[in-house]
Amino acid sequence: MFISFEGIDFSGKSTQVKLLENYLKDQNKKVKLIREPGGTEISEKIRKILLDKENNHMVMETEIFLFSASRAQLVREVIRPSLEKGYYVISDRFHDSSTAYQGYGRGLPVDSIVKINNLAIGNTVPDITFFIDIPNEVAIARKAQRSMSDLDRIEVSDENFFERVRNGYLKIAESEKRFRVIDGTKSIEEINEMIINEINILEGVNK
Amino acid sequence: MFISFEGIDFSGKSTQVKLLENYLKDQNKKVKLIREPGGTEISEKIRKILLDKENNHMVMETEIFLFSASRAQLVREVIRPSLEKGYYVISDRFHDSSTAYQGYGRGLPVDSIVKINNLAIGNTVPDITFFIDIPNEVAIARKAQRSMSDLDRIEVSDENFFERVRNGYLKIAESEKRFRVIDGTKSIEEINEMIINEINILEGVNK
Repeated sequence: MFISFEGIDFSGKSTQVKLLENYLKDQNKKVKLIREPGGTEISEKIRKILLDKENNHMVMETEIFLFSASRAQLVREVIRPSLEKGYYVISDRFHDSSTAYQGYGRGLPVDSIVKINNLAIGNTVPDITFFIDIPNEVAIARKAQRSMSDLDRIEVSDENFFERVRNGYLKIAESEKRFRVIDGTKSIEEINEMIINEINILEGVNK
Repeated sequence: MFISFEGIDFSGKSTQVKLLENYLKDQNKKVKLIREPGGTEISEKIRKILLDKENNHMVMETEIFLFSASRAQLVREVIRPSLEKGYYVISDRFHDSSTAYQGYGRGLPVDSIVKINNLAIGNTVPDITFFIDIPNEVAIARKAQRSMSDLDRIEVSDENFFERVRNGYLKIAESEKRFRVIDGTKSIEEINEMIINEINILEGVNK
């Protein structure tokens, strides 16, 4: 099963990824955790360029292509072989991030991004995608607790940007059956339970 | 004026780029020479990943996205500002390389590459493109004179690959009016003269 997590920064999705990994491992499942961008030798080199604050003059077209380059390598080198070996693959961000961030967030044509995504991932689409949704104000409050020097190039973007990204995710959720919108203001434990419940329902359906 | 040079490796195009640059400078023109992939700080970092032989397990989808990422940055950071300032911009390879190499050469869908190119370059299409055409045998003979350790990741590709790339260029030439197919087996001086002649014709037309 291929599971992706999406959300604006500070939504708490990385915590949920870790909790789901632990749960599945406790069930004696083989789990492969991946993080975007990155996850292969080549993709990590691309990640470095993407997140380096020195590169803050990067144009948005370059950004989408670099994310797609990292992802294309990850799909073929890690995700597909892992799925074939029966692993649960959990991805902290996947192609929906490009549609939400570079499309709805930065204003690149969404239909172009959908085409780029298609070339990057082929038929390797997640079986289920958890969108951990938090209102902009919650993100801002959480962000204020982190010092600026800890933030990467994308996390320092302005607040309207995150509002557009969030609305983008909600639009994708309307058309993609694999999307589960999770209220990210609930407690960590409640969210974890909702996620496990959804995974179990999906596995029941697939059996 | 925006001029691009295309050709399979060992076609001698880089020599011709240099000669045209000298000619234009002798005419007191402002000339900006660019080399693909690369040409900006970010693009040079991408170039390093693309040409490193350590990355020879790079999948073709990653390759096209990295070339496009480098190009998108170069167009907006260097090419457009230079054209606006009245420079002659000469590019050693441009978007047709993606169509020829990753499309016709590696077999990615050509229509996807055309769409990716559109997003990468927008309306910054060369005014004239010189395709320095040499038969595969000539490329092989020239390649044999260089030691393997001097060749980058793409230059070490197999010979059928270059045949497909060459045929791809010839197909593009059929549909793109800006293409000039130049016989690359002629002498360096003859080729230089043909190129200068074409530039002068185009400038006459544009005046």
